[in-house]
Order: sequence, then C-alpha cells, then structure tokens
Amino acid sequence: MNEKKAVILLSGGLDSITVLAYAKSQRYQCYTLSFDYGQRHNAELNAARKIAEHYQVEEHKVINLGLSDIGGSALTDENIAVPDTPQEGIPVTYVPARNTVFLAFALGWAEVLHASDIFIGVNAVDYSGYPDCRPEFINAFQNLANLATKAGVEGEQIKVHTPLILFSKAEIIQLGTRLGVDYQATVSCYAADAEGRACGHCDACRLRITGFEQAGITDPTIYQG
Amino acid sequence: MNEKKAVILLSGGLDSITVLAYAKSQRYQCYTLSFDYGQRHNAELNAARKIAEHYQVEEHKVINLGLSDIGGSALTDENIAVPDTPQEGIPVTYVPARNTVFLAFALGWAEVLHASDIFIGVNAVDYSGYPDCRPEFINAFQNLANLATKAGVEGEQIKVHTPLILFSKAEIIQLGTRLGVDYQATVSCYAADAEGRACGHCDACRLRITGFEQAGITDPTIYQG
Repeated sequence: MNEKKAVILLSGGLDSITVLAYAKSQRYQCYTLSFDYGQRHNAELNAARKIAEHYQVEEHKVINLGLSDIGGSALTDENIAVPDTPQEGIPVTYVPARNTVFLAFALGWAEVLHASDIFIGVNAVDYSGYPDCRPEFINAFQNLANLATKAGVEGEQIKVHTPLILFSKAEIIQLGTRLGVDYQATVSCYAADAEGRACGHCDACRLRITGFEQAGITDPTIYQG
Repeated sequence: MNEKKAVILLSGGLDSITVLAYAKSQRYQCYTLSFDYGQRHNAELNAARKIAEHYQVEEHKVINLGLSDIGGSALTDENIAVPDTPQEGIPVTYVPARNTVFLAFALGWAEVLHASDIFIGVNAVDYSGYPDCRPEFINAFQNLANLATKAGVEGEQIKVHTPLILFSKAEIIQLGTRLGVDYQATVSCYAADAEGRACGHCDACRLRITGFEQAGITDPTIYQG
C-alpha cells in the first residue's frame, strides 16, 4: 500500500469513478468527497456512496453546500429548465464556480488529513464549454493551493491530479474498462429518476452514449421507460 | 449611485464592517455574503445580519456550509480548544481553506449577479499567521477567478478588492471611524456568548483591544462578566 493519502472528488458519475479506480491502481489511500448542493440528480449521491463502499475507500464524506442558494444554473435552480437539445456556448447546466468550491473543500480536507494529492475528473475535451474544466484553471488552482495552506507555506507541494483532462469520453471509458470499472453503478444524466435511471436525451446522456459507441463497448446504462 | 455591483464578504467582525462601509463610500451596489459553517461564535452571524440591514444592502445571503465536517480547527471542531494565550506559527483557530471556500462562493454569486467586484477584509499585517490572508494568495485567487468564470472567458476582469490588506488594526479602526462605523455592532471574539459579548482574552480580542488603544479611540466593545 502506498503511504500517500489522496482526496478524490467523487460525483458518482462516469468520470469520477474512473478517477477513483485510477488512483486506487496507483496505490493511493483514497478519501472520497461528494457534495449535496441541491443538484436535481440526487441519484448521483447514492451512486457515489455505493462506489465508495465498493472501492473500500478509507473514508467517504458528503458535504452539505448551499450552492443552490446562489442559483444561476439549470442544475440547481428550479426556474431554469434543463435543455434536451445541445446549446451554443457555456450551457445553462454550468454551475457558477462549482469546481472552485469543490476543489476548495478538497483542499481543506487534504490539509486536515496531511494529504498533498487531490484527484478530480475534469475533462477539457468533452467539457461542454465549462470554463472551470480547462487545464489553465487547474494550474491556477494548484498555484492557489500552495499559497492557501499551511502545507504550502511549510514547503510541501499540493498536486491537483487530472488524469482524464485530455481524454475523450471514449478514451475514459476504455481506461475505466481496463481498470475493471462497472459503469452501471454510475449516474451521469442531468434528469435521472430516483432509481438513477437516465433520460437518454440531455447533454450528459448524449456525451455518454456517444462515448460508449466510439469506445466500442456495450453501454450498460439503464434508461427510463 | 454607482451602477457597479459588488459582492462583499461580511463576517460580522470589525474588518468586514469597515470593508462594507468603504465599498458603500465608493458607491457600489452592495450584496453581502455570510457563512454559517458551524463556527462557535454564531453571534457573528446575528451581527452580520444587523449590519447588512443598517447599511441597507441590496441583498444579504447566509450560505450553509459543511465546513465543520472537515474539522481541523479550534473554530469548528469541538475537540480542539481555543487557546487563551498567543501561539507560535499558524494558530489552531486557522480553518483549513476557509478563505478559498468563501471567495469561491463570492465568485459564484458575482457571476450570477453579473458583478465583477468582490471585497474581502483580509489583512496581512495582523493576520496571525493565516496563509490565506496574504497578498500572494489574493493575487492567485484573482488569477483563478478570471479563468474559472463565464465572465472571465468572455473578457470581463474580476477584481478582488482588499482595501485593508496593508493596514494595521489601529489603521482599520481609524478608517472605519472616519467612515462612521459603529464598532459596537461587530463581534470579533472567538468565544463570544450568545449576546455577542466578548471574552477579552482570545487572540481576536487581544488584537482588537490593542487596535483601539493604538488608534487612540475608545473601545466600544461589550465584554463578558
């Protein structure tokens, strides 16, 4: 067992399970972090819990966040509809500053655990126009992290790992499949029902369906209706 | 009235009321943001609400944050005692990644409001060893903010204002007094009672008491017992 502890952001989706499987394969001691932020697809949180259990992580935390109090996104604001056709530019499903908030909490927990490694499943290829999924953003956060913390001040380097950042969805699925990931356990859909069944139409479903097709791997997702 | 909107982090303490008064004097439309993060001194939040009302801000939001779930600080973890004598190095009252989390939420709200100005009352002089109160940290956050957001991507510059960053506590009190701030409305103490009365012994009280002495201004704080 690697002695190094890592904090892994685990949404319960396809990307983050792959990141967890990857960190496990690198023999990190994994501490997984999910957020209850009023997202419509709460099925994600149940998926994250089961995934954390399956991978026997050291600890799984779910943090309550008033992110929906801020509004501004179809994922957290009931007054903004989730579109079922692709949109131009930055989509309404973008949650303002979400990854900044998530990474800030990961950083805080890493500091408490004396961990200097954080893993996040951001992806710049299929990022659907989210500004906080780009390599420049991650580099800026890592720079911030080393200035923000005791560990940084005392000379330890915090590293934000983004193993999927340059992968297509198909390549992520191929990597995960090699690592033995069971994608049926994951929820990507923005409009999943209580059982975690996917709508098959939203941006997240489309990306996922195309990913399995291009990967040449049978899609294990359970769809509604 | 300035047409520019600004998000102001308002803790209910001496520094943040001064920042709010300063932003008001610069004719910003002020949106104030406080956090309920399981801090021991909940009297702060009541003070923040009253201050926001007094200054007739456009909107005051209190965000619930599971920051205490992470632990690691005497301010949020019941198992760590608040010391009543000064400590060497980074103190146990430091909350891991607190300002990173607070600024991330301010950034999200700014994005929703189409505001590009954020005010925070950090202070590098009397910062008691908190790494996330230094100018380097603020610069790194501003750099991050411009990469993290729609506004940044679309070319608008987010500015993080830190009007107090190079002021001593005495200078802050002198500035606030010129701006008409009523410091009796504020709570700085780490161990304030339910009515907001200060202990007079903790690090925060000591800094504040010395600040009023050095400013040559009568301390209006109400102390316990």
